[in-house]
Amino acid sequence: MRKVFQEELTQVGEQLVEISKLVSEAMGKAATSFQVADVDLAEDVIAADARIDFLQTSLDERAIDILALQGPVASDLRMIVGSLRMSASLERMGDLARHIAQLARLRFPSTVIPASMTETFNKMAEQDQLIADKLVVLLESRDLEVARDILKANSTIDDLHLSVFKAIAAPDWAESPATTVDVALASRYFERFADHGVSVARKVTYLVTGEWQPQGI
Amino acid sequence: MRKVFQEELTQVGEQLVEISKLVSEAMGKAATSFQVADVDLAEDVIAADARIDFLQTSLDERAIDILALQGPVASDLRMIVGSLRMSASLERMGDLARHIAQLARLRFPSTVIPASMTETFNKMAEQDQLIADKLVVLLESRDLEVARDILKANSTIDDLHLSVFKAIAAPDWAESPATTVDVALASRYFERFADHGVSVARKVTYLVTGEWQPQGI
Repeated sequence: MRKVFQEELTQVGEQLVEISKLVSEAMGKAATSFQVADVDLAEDVIAADARIDFLQTSLDERAIDILALQGPVASDLRMIVGSLRMSASLERMGDLARHIAQLARLRFPSTVIPASMTETFNKMAEQDQLIADKLVVLLESRDLEVARDILKANSTIDDLHLSVFKAIAAPDWAESPATTVDVALASRYFERFADHGVSVARKVTYLVTGEWQPQGI
Repeated sequence: MRKVFQEELTQVGEQLVEISKLVSEAMGKAATSFQVADVDLAEDVIAADARIDFLQTSLDERAIDILALQGPVASDLRMIVGSLRMSASLERMGDLARHIAQLARLRFPSTVIPASMTETFNKMAEQDQLIADKLVVLLESRDLEVARDILKANSTIDDLHLSVFKAIAAPDWAESPATTVDVALASRYFERFADHGVSVARKVTYLVTGEWQPQGI
C-alpha cells in the first residue's frame, strides 16, 4: 500500500513537469508568432492549450483521489495541496501564452507591436522563456538556486513592463488607439506570465524548506 | 469527533461567505471611487484588500488542517478542495477591485475614463456588483437559480467589454494614449472580476449537483 502511494505521489510530480514542459513550449511558440507574425504558429499555440487544460484537470482528479484514498499527512499532504495550486498557476500560464498568440492571429499579417517596441518585447519574451524553462528544471530538481533565477527574471520583466507604460504615456507616442491597447495588453500578458511563474517557484520553495517566504525566495 | 468535524466544515463555509461579503464591499467602493474620482474611497479599498488576503490564507490553513486531521472523503472532501479553489478565486476578485481602485487613485482628481464611456462602465460596475452580491447569497443558500443569474450578468459584461474595445478601435476615438490604456485595462479588470465570479458559481454548482457543467450552469 505504502509503495503504491509513493508511486502515485511521483506520478503527480511527473505530471506537473509534463505540464510545465508544454507551458514552456507554448510560450516559445507564442513569443515567436507574436514577434514575426506567424499565424500558423499562433494557431498551434491556441490549439495546444486544450491539452494543458486537460492535463491540469487530470492531475487535479488524481490528487483528489489520493486525498480521498490515502489520507496523506504532513509533507505528503503539503505536496498534494501544493500540486493542486501549482497546476492552477501552470494552466493560467498556458492561457496567457494563448492570449499572446491570439493577439498575433488578430493582427496578422501585421505584427502586433510597432518597431519602436520590438526590443523591449523581445527582452520580455526572452525572460518569460527563461522563467518557463527554469520552472521545468525546478520542478524536476527542486534546486532552490533555480527558484532565485526565476525571481530575478521576474524583476527584469517588471522593469520592462513599467517602461512600456512609460513609453505609451510619453508625449512622442504616436501609435493608433488599437495598437496602443495591443501594446498595453501584451505587456500585461507577459508580465502576468512571469508572476505565475514566481508563484510556482514560491510553492516549490515552500515544499522544500517548509517555510513560506512571500518577500523573496 | 464527527460533530467537531461537521462544525469545522461549517466554519470553512462561513469563512467563504465572510470573504465574499468583503469582496462585494470592495467592488462597491472600488466602482464608486472609479466613477466619481473619490481618492479616499479608493484608499479604503486598497487597504482593505490585505484583510481579504489574510482571510484567504487563514481559510486555506484551516482546510489543510481538516484534510490532515480528519481525512475527509466523498462530498466532504469535495467541499474542502472546492473551498480551497473558491477562496483563490475570491482573493483574485479582491485584487481586481483593488486594481480598479488603484486606477482611480492614479488619475485623481480626474476620473479614469472619458465621459463618452461613463454609461458603459456604469453598466459594467452594476453587473459586477450584482455578481458579487449574488455570490454571497449563493454561498449562503446554495440556490442554483442564483448561479444562473451570475452567468447571465457575466454574459452582459462580456458584451460591454467587447463594446469598449470596439469604441477604442473606431475612427472617431480621440482620447490620449494614457486614457486609452486606462479604459482598456479597466474594462479588462471588470470583465475578469465577473469571470472569477462565474468560476466560483460553477464550483458551488458542482458541489451541489456533483456534475461539472463547463458550458453552463
